[in-house]
Amino acid sequence: MGQEQPQAGVTLDAFTGRYAARTAGMTASEIRALFAVASRPEVVSLAGGMPYTSALPLDSVGKLMGDLIATRGAQALQYGSGQGDLRLRELICEVMALEGVVASPDDVVVTVGSQQALDLVTRIFCDPDDVVLAEAPSYVGALGTFASYQAEVRHVAMDADGLQPEALREAIRETGGRAKFLYTIPNFHNPAGVSLSDARRDEVLAICQEAGILVLEDNPYGLLGFDGPPVRAIRARSGTDDVVYLGSFSKTFAPGLRVGWVLAPHAVREKLVLASEASVLCPPQLNQLAVVDYLETQDWQGQVDVFRGIYRERRDAMLDALTQLMPRGTTWTVPTGGFYVWTTLPEGLDAKVMQPRAITARVAYVPGIGFYADGQGRREMRLSYCYPEPDRIREGVRRLAGVVEAELDLLATFGPTAGRSSSAAVQTPAPDMA
Amino acid sequence: MGQEQPQAGVTLDAFTGRYAARTAGMTASEIRALFAVASRPEVVSLAGGMPYTSALPLDSVGKLMGDLIATRGAQALQYGSGQGDLRLRELICEVMALEGVVASPDDVVVTVGSQQALDLVTRIFCDPDDVVLAEAPSYVGALGTFASYQAEVRHVAMDADGLQPEALREAIRETGGRAKFLYTIPNFHNPAGVSLSDARRDEVLAICQEAGILVLEDNPYGLLGFDGPPVRAIRARSGTDDVVYLGSFSKTFAPGLRVGWVLAPHAVREKLVLASEASVLCPPQLNQLAVVDYLETQDWQGQVDVFRGIYRERRDAMLDALTQLMPRGTTWTVPTGGFYVWTTLPEGLDAKVMQPRAITARVAYVPGIGFYADGQGRREMRLSYCYPEPDRIREGVRRLAGVVEAELDLLATFGPTAGRSSSAAVQTPAPDMA
Repeated sequence: MGQEQPQAGVTLDAFTGRYAARTAGMTASEIRALFAVASRPEVVSLAGGMPYTSALPLDSVGKLMGDLIATRGAQALQYGSGQGDLRLRELICEVMALEGVVASPDDVVVTVGSQQALDLVTRIFCDPDDVVLAEAPSYVGALGTFASYQAEVRHVAMDADGLQPEALREAIRETGGRAKFLYTIPNFHNPAGVSLSDARRDEVLAICQEAGILVLEDNPYGLLGFDGPPVRAIRARSGTDDVVYLGSFSKTFAPGLRVGWVLAPHAVREKLVLASEASVLCPPQLNQLAVVDYLETQDWQGQVDVFRGIYRERRDAMLDALTQLMPRGTTWTVPTGGFYVWTTLPEGLDAKVMQPRAITARVAYVPGIGFYADGQGRREMRLSYCYPEPDRIREGVRRLAGVVEAELDLLATFGPTAGRSSSAAVQTPAPDMA
Repeated sequence: MGQEQPQAGVTLDAFTGRYAARTAGMTASEIRALFAVASRPEVVSLAGGMPYTSALPLDSVGKLMGDLIATRGAQALQYGSGQGDLRLRELICEVMALEGVVASPDDVVVTVGSQQALDLVTRIFCDPDDVVLAEAPSYVGALGTFASYQAEVRHVAMDADGLQPEALREAIRETGGRAKFLYTIPNFHNPAGVSLSDARRDEVLAICQEAGILVLEDNPYGLLGFDGPPVRAIRARSGTDDVVYLGSFSKTFAPGLRVGWVLAPHAVREKLVLASEASVLCPPQLNQLAVVDYLETQDWQGQVDVFRGIYRERRDAMLDALTQLMPRGTTWTVPTGGFYVWTTLPEGLDAKVMQPRAITARVAYVPGIGFYADGQGRREMRLSYCYPEPDRIREGVRRLAGVVEAELDLLATFGPTAGRSSSAAVQTPAPDMA
């Protein structure tokens, strides 16, 4: 800007003072800062949340996509509707029916991944200083979105059965009517690796209904359970007006297509379509029709079974290695599906402070503080088993265990690491490592 | 919501009172309301802004996409970077060089169509009640985005040479420091069909530089001129810190991919990446790599020449028909590229009031009021020649001329239609008819 030249030593951003107030809340996440180092081949990355796309039937998907363009290309490459393709919305209802959800395609909006659904729901509901209730810890990408709309996050404690109902009641009491919705990931939580028990689902729903608080149920991993059929969704237990449900093909098919969806009460759905049109005009028609063809012509549930087998084997590799190798005092959750193990270090250690030494030892993880809006989680870390092969996972845990041992030695010699602290901040997610 | 059941006669939206303040500004556009009728086969639609995708080499594009997935599918179907693929950003710089822009790939952010770029720029710059300067008329999708962030639009008059510099000076004086940026479409304006002259580009840039106002240059149609090489972009005349430039492959390749971009000052680019990650995590990797392969292996500039030939012929068909058939007192702009002719009806007529009669006569257009944030444009309408074939265009204009004749007869008999008015509102765009 002509009149706002940066002055040496003052600021390097000539636009400081010109941004919207919300822009101050946008900062790079723990995950993104990590990406450059974690992607080096010599580093075992237990940091990323990338599905194992190499297991897809790439020849069949390629042929399907080539045929789609050759035969219906003028439509597939054209603008589409803001709400999304009708046939895809019908198929999405069939996918949700696997978790007991009964829904009309008219109440579904196709989105650019479920991240866009999160963005749109927050956009239409949250004024600055509104409260969002979210699990402690919670998905880093959701925290970034809430921060970008200047919403305040109030965390709600979890245990091995997921969100604690009593903690939810207390959070609602404390925030006294300011909460717009409860954001929850009931299945194979990212990052906590736990699931909300069947009984608690009813209880959590009843608490929110009584308080007049919408439930925002984010369910990207629901079909990726290792032990039997999916648990009924919260949306399957509620009326149509109590829950906004988010789904995605990123983990059951492919994240590179960016096809997700939101199922919402009818009046809310209308607002979401308007907000999506203002945001991206329409989701990519090509990607939507490719998902339609994939669901209609391929054994997509068989492919989900393939993924489940792969991730189960990797989960086992990680849990076995943790049990065998991690020093006493380290604890972790036991996921029954999904991608993540949430690990707590022995007292006195700090996962963020330890991170550079882990990178030096050629292993990467995500420090826990990125998954909280309030600076909690210094002893915690997220370990992912979705992408590396089992031998690499074991090697990664071996390296990590060595780093923790060395930290414990330092602690015994010099005392706690609390002084070597680093700052926590609310963050936007890093796509490479969602 | 449990405690907010709708009461008959009061409201049908149980969530009224729960939405964010910004949501009140989200209403369906003139264009969207029109879509259902305009897409009926018996109606000649001069309403839509859909590129003629049937002219693409669909077999080649299909093969390219099939090969991409078969050979590099694990990468193409994976998450990508929030900023977008590096090779694509390099190629985007080569595309922009055709209009004289010198830029670094590091300052480019790939977006989900240039609509997302509009959304992100508005998100990081506009607080409620900030002012955006925009041409009169302006792109309906941009007005919807500005409204969704509660920004106030101040229109700036145009003539056959585009934005009027003196009107811009006056608008800046009147808004006294509240303007965050000037939003302008310098080439083959949507909807006005005019272009900003070479001399005025320098003048507009100088005015904004002097006032410390960023120029937001939206250029989806720049390569689709009918008469000779492209005019140098405003960004090609400025320093790197004065202009944010938006581009798109929607009109030069295919809108169904939703691949656009924003070139921004470096500090702004960083904020845009954070905002995009909070919004969609990352743009679809598959679509980006498909554009890379298309640009690298196909004669894409030859294909742009094919599009230019098609649109030139259709422009001629429309202008000839307007000249031959429209009643005296009707005027229109003469586009030298792009998709649109902006038409002004004889005094006393109202394009919005006339619309149902046009639909009855089986011709559709977009009433002008949708392209203003302030209720201007009642005598105006947007006519598109991009999608229908020349014979259909002539037939459409013939029908439209008949409707205008009949309106003039009514006017002579009963007086002006001003009483039969309809409301204007700021609107979100309709993707099908961008």
